[in-house]
Amino acid sequence: MQIKLSEIPTKAPKELEKDFIKAKTAEILNDIKKLQDILIASKKNALLVILQGMDASGKDGVTKNVFGALNPLGINVAAFKKPTEEEMAHDFLWRVHKVVPSKGNITIFNRSHYEDVLIQRVHHWVDEKTIKNRFEAINDFETLLEQTGTKIIKCFLHISENEQLERLQERKTNPEKMWKHNDDDWEERKLWKQYQNAYEDVFENCSKAAKWHIIQTDQNWYKEYLIADLVKNALEDMHLEYPLLNSK
Amino acid sequence: MQIKLSEIPTKAPKELEKDFIKAKTAEILNDIKKLQDILIASKKNALLVILQGMDASGKDGVTKNVFGALNPLGINVAAFKKPTEEEMAHDFLWRVHKVVPSKGNITIFNRSHYEDVLIQRVHHWVDEKTIKNRFEAINDFETLLEQTGTKIIKCFLHISENEQLERLQERKTNPEKMWKHNDDDWEERKLWKQYQNAYEDVFENCSKAAKWHIIQTDQNWYKEYLIADLVKNALEDMHLEYPLLNSK
Repeated sequence: MQIKLSEIPTKAPKELEKDFIKAKTAEILNDIKKLQDILIASKKNALLVILQGMDASGKDGVTKNVFGALNPLGINVAAFKKPTEEEMAHDFLWRVHKVVPSKGNITIFNRSHYEDVLIQRVHHWVDEKTIKNRFEAINDFETLLEQTGTKIIKCFLHISENEQLERLQERKTNPEKMWKHNDDDWEERKLWKQYQNAYEDVFENCSKAAKWHIIQTDQNWYKEYLIADLVKNALEDMHLEYPLLNSK
Repeated sequence: MQIKLSEIPTKAPKELEKDFIKAKTAEILNDIKKLQDILIASKKNALLVILQGMDASGKDGVTKNVFGALNPLGINVAAFKKPTEEEMAHDFLWRVHKVVPSKGNITIFNRSHYEDVLIQRVHHWVDEKTIKNRFEAINDFETLLEQTGTKIIKCFLHISENEQLERLQERKTNPEKMWKHNDDDWEERKLWKQYQNAYEDVFENCSKAAKWHIIQTDQNWYKEYLIADLVKNALEDMHLEYPLLNSK
């Protein structure tokens, strides 16, 4: 069943209270901290969190407010920008594969290999045959990671067009946010519908090895809660245990 | 049709004359040099040459005598040894993907990701389910490379058990070769049949994206001719052209 983003809310359910949820998130983060200790000690699993979303959907905020609480010894963040010349001279997964987490570690992808089937498709920089090949290559790549001990959590930060507008405008007026202003974001915003369609196609075609989570993103407190909860569940599902003496 | 290595000769056809073939190889290498110049200039394709074979089958010799003639600016050699601790903490293709050739370049793999379905299988370090997953992952990985402009030439250096014995013995007596002696090679030799079976299975399961070439290896002059010829044909098939002014 094809996902229609326009039919999925971008806000938390009305009955939820912000303070209550924030308290819950704090509890979850405490649990995650304990689980991360065992992840590092046992070195048998890895966790890869992929954050995708429109500009100003708050990918940096998640990195800071959810993962900032964890032990930096076992956390890496990889932000994927415009590919360098060296990266362009390789297949699109080359730069990505290099920075996947090793066992015991958590890596956050701020944008990812999905940009190669999103921005590149929306702007028609590559043809549809290439997009199809990339969908397959992404599924194969994620299968390899999953089969070798890396759990992948893929989050789409689902923001409304209005909320994005407010946030982009704030970047023009709030001195603490001006450094984030970028004229390009306003240009990309004009392609809103095309991006939403491209995302829907990604969910349809690239959910084989790891599923997508649509995260209600208009309120940061709810977004952070949802992602923290996913991380906790993923770590719990690993059934992590401290290694015993001489168990190597 | 499953390949039976025991039915494939390890020697050159009797009617071939060594001097004639050596002269031909020299001609081919000259052609390859000219083709490599265009490969480097056009930066549209890459070439990956994978060398696999039993110990003393002469992988180093190929690297020196075939690829030594080319412009080192555009040649890399990656030799895959026992994985490091960091490499072991990632999927088996992680260390391999990092060193694939960028466009314009030729990379020689002296051993490769195939060790992960050969030595590891023969010694039962991994289970058969894992081997099956790795076959698939290898096919997917090679498909990605082929689809993004990298031609892959896979060579199995097919040597006879007797010829290997002579070469290993020479390493014990010839002072110029003693540095290559390794007791482990004599241990691995006892697993000859198991290795040949594992190779046959690789040919059967991992020929989807790029085919295997069985190289008659008992005589170095013939082996070098065969591989040089494969390289020349691969470069010719790329239809390389010098880029024109402003064609970027």
